[in-house]
Amino acid sequence: MKTLESLYVHFLRDIYYAEKQVLKNLPKMARKASSPELKEAIEHHREETEQQIANLEQVFELMGLKARGVTCDAINGILEESKEIMEEAETDEVRDAGIIAAAQAVEHYEITRYGTMISFTKKLKLDAKVAKLLQANLDQEYAADKLLSKLGETQINAKAA
Amino acid sequence: MKTLESLYVHFLRDIYYAEKQVLKNLPKMARKASSPELKEAIEHHREETEQQIANLEQVFELMGLKARGVTCDAINGILEESKEIMEEAETDEVRDAGIIAAAQAVEHYEITRYGTMISFTKKLKLDAKVAKLLQANLDQEYAADKLLSKLGETQINAKAA
Repeated sequence: MKTLESLYVHFLRDIYYAEKQVLKNLPKMARKASSPELKEAIEHHREETEQQIANLEQVFELMGLKARGVTCDAINGILEESKEIMEEAETDEVRDAGIIAAAQAVEHYEITRYGTMISFTKKLKLDAKVAKLLQANLDQEYAADKLLSKLGETQINAKAA
Repeated sequence: MKTLESLYVHFLRDIYYAEKQVLKNLPKMARKASSPELKEAIEHHREETEQQIANLEQVFELMGLKARGVTCDAINGILEESKEIMEEAETDEVRDAGIIAAAQAVEHYEITRYGTMISFTKKLKLDAKVAKLLQANLDQEYAADKLLSKLGETQINAKAA
C-alpha cells in the first residue's frame, strides 16, 4: 500500500467483509436472545445491516471498483468471542447480557472503522456521496450502540442481577 | 456462566488479557510510527496502559480474586490486523495513517468493554472503588481515541494525501 487511497480501499473491503459476517451472525444472536426487546433490536439491526451493505456497494461503484471483501481478523475475533459467550451462558439472563456486550463490541468496531474512513474521504477529496453513505452507516451504528446500552441498563441487567 | 457476576469476571479477565497484549504491542507501533507526535502519543498511552493494568489488578483484589487473563480473540484479531497493515504499508505516511486507525480500533474495543463492565458494577452493587478504577481506565481510552482522531485529521492524513 503506497497511497492513502489504497489504505482507504483496504478499509472499505475490510468493513464490507465485516458487515457481511455480522449479517450472517445476527439471526443466530436474535434466536439465542430471550428478551423480546433485544430480539427486536437485533432483528431491526439486521435490516439496517442489509442496507449498510447496499450502501457500501454504492461506495465501491462510485469509486469504480468491484465490491469485494478482505478477511477482517478483528470482526472474526469479536464474533468468535460472542459465540463463546452465547455457548457458555447457562441462563437466559446471562446470555442476554452477553449478547448485548458482544453486539456492542461489533458496533464499536464498525464505529471506529467508519470514523476513520470518513476522515479519509475528506483528505482524499472523494465524491461527497461517498462520505454521505458512510455517514449514514456510522449514524446507524451509533444509534444501535446507544439502544443496546439502554437495553443493558434496564430490564436485562436488572433481571440477571 | 450462571450469574451476571461470573460474566462480569469473564469480562474482567478478558480486558486484563487485552490490556497486556496491547502493552506488548505499543512499543512496536511507536517504533514503526514516523510522526514524532504519533510516537509521543503512543509512548504516553503505553504508560497509561501500565497504570490501567495496575488498576485492573486492584479490581481483582477488591473482588477477592487472583489477577489472571483469559484469551481475548477480539483483541488478538485487532492486533493481527494492525500488524498486517504496518507490514503492508510502503510509505511512512500510509503506515502512520494505518497505525492511527489500528490504535483507534484497539481503543474502541476497550471503550465498549469498560462501558459494559461499568454498567455491570451498578447492577451487581460492587464496591464503588471498582467502578471508579474502571471509569479511570475508560476516561483514558476516550482521551486516547480523541487524540488519535485529531492526529489523523491534521498533519498525518494531510501528508499522506
